[in-house]
Amino acid sequence: MYEGAVQDLIDELGRLPGIGPKSAQRIAFHVLSADQAEVRRLVDALTEVKARVRFCSLCGNIAQEELCRVCRDPRRSLATICVVEEPKDVVAIERTREFRGRYHVLGGAINPIAGVGPDDLRIRDLLTRLADGSVTEVILAMDPNVEGEATATYLARMLVPLGLTVSRLASGLPVGGDLEYADEVTLGRALEGRRRISA
Amino acid sequence: MYEGAVQDLIDELGRLPGIGPKSAQRIAFHVLSADQAEVRRLVDALTEVKARVRFCSLCGNIAQEELCRVCRDPRRSLATICVVEEPKDVVAIERTREFRGRYHVLGGAINPIAGVGPDDLRIRDLLTRLADGSVTEVILAMDPNVEGEATATYLARMLVPLGLTVSRLASGLPVGGDLEYADEVTLGRALEGRRRISA
Repeated sequence: MYEGAVQDLIDELGRLPGIGPKSAQRIAFHVLSADQAEVRRLVDALTEVKARVRFCSLCGNIAQEELCRVCRDPRRSLATICVVEEPKDVVAIERTREFRGRYHVLGGAINPIAGVGPDDLRIRDLLTRLADGSVTEVILAMDPNVEGEATATYLARMLVPLGLTVSRLASGLPVGGDLEYADEVTLGRALEGRRRISA
Repeated sequence: MYEGAVQDLIDELGRLPGIGPKSAQRIAFHVLSADQAEVRRLVDALTEVKARVRFCSLCGNIAQEELCRVCRDPRRSLATICVVEEPKDVVAIERTREFRGRYHVLGGAINPIAGVGPDDLRIRDLLTRLADGSVTEVILAMDPNVEGEATATYLARMLVPLGLTVSRLASGLPVGGDLEYADEVTLGRALEGRRRISA
């Protein structure tokens, strides 16, 4: 519909996740009227990410060097590994400032329908990291959905026999939530995982 | 939160209209795992748009040459000009395949709150185009909202005394709409603009 270059940009933007045709058009018009410098910065950021970012050779998190920021940090405990699905989960947990161990990023979750099996995840690398005995605890921090549960169950079955402390993130009511509006599965989990209050 | 290049990309994406922090993060991760070629195409499209696209020197529509596609087309009538607010409105009207005249893009609408007055729009250029008398009809195709109405009223007051046929797009029920759910202003316009059916 638009002349060459504008239509090309709308098409390319429309391929990005979560960008429909109307958003793509809106962004294209924004780019058209934006400062040359602003567009330059976006182009540079795109180019830089592809040129410089890779995955940590140890944990699979995103990194700009051989190792990611967490694996490079000598203050982080080597005794605990938190296993997550994706690099963005690392950021979510880092934001809590509650965890001082290292991570292991699987690169997804077991999902037979999408054809993702245990061999497609970085499970072998995890076992290699556990081999020298310095890790004593593994926290399974998969998403609380069917695929995440399946992955956690699979890993727990593999790790518990190794004599490690294996735990799963607590499931229950979100803080600030409302009991009345909680779905029954979440409320059921909250009941099941109730914690005794010591006097 | 993320290492250098990834955070830079998230920040730049977050500056685009309609992209919040979560979408920016999602797109950044898509870019990270996308083919080098796909990212290259997006980067090229962004660069090309800034390098090649400009505004038609006659009508103000987006163009890749001195004149836009419509103004270059000798089959388009010179007698009718359709005045719109933005280049995307040209595309919307072209899509109907009902209009065979030329366009004039104002670059916005009169909006005193946002500080946009008649002098900020391409109204002087429109009067210049009308000066030689080859144009006989002007269609005012502003958006049917307060700013669009104000702009249309302003232009009509200026153009009618020149002896031109001046019209405004019909306002009424959208095709496929439901009378019951129409808002009262739209329904009022539909009544006001009712058309007699000849036997």
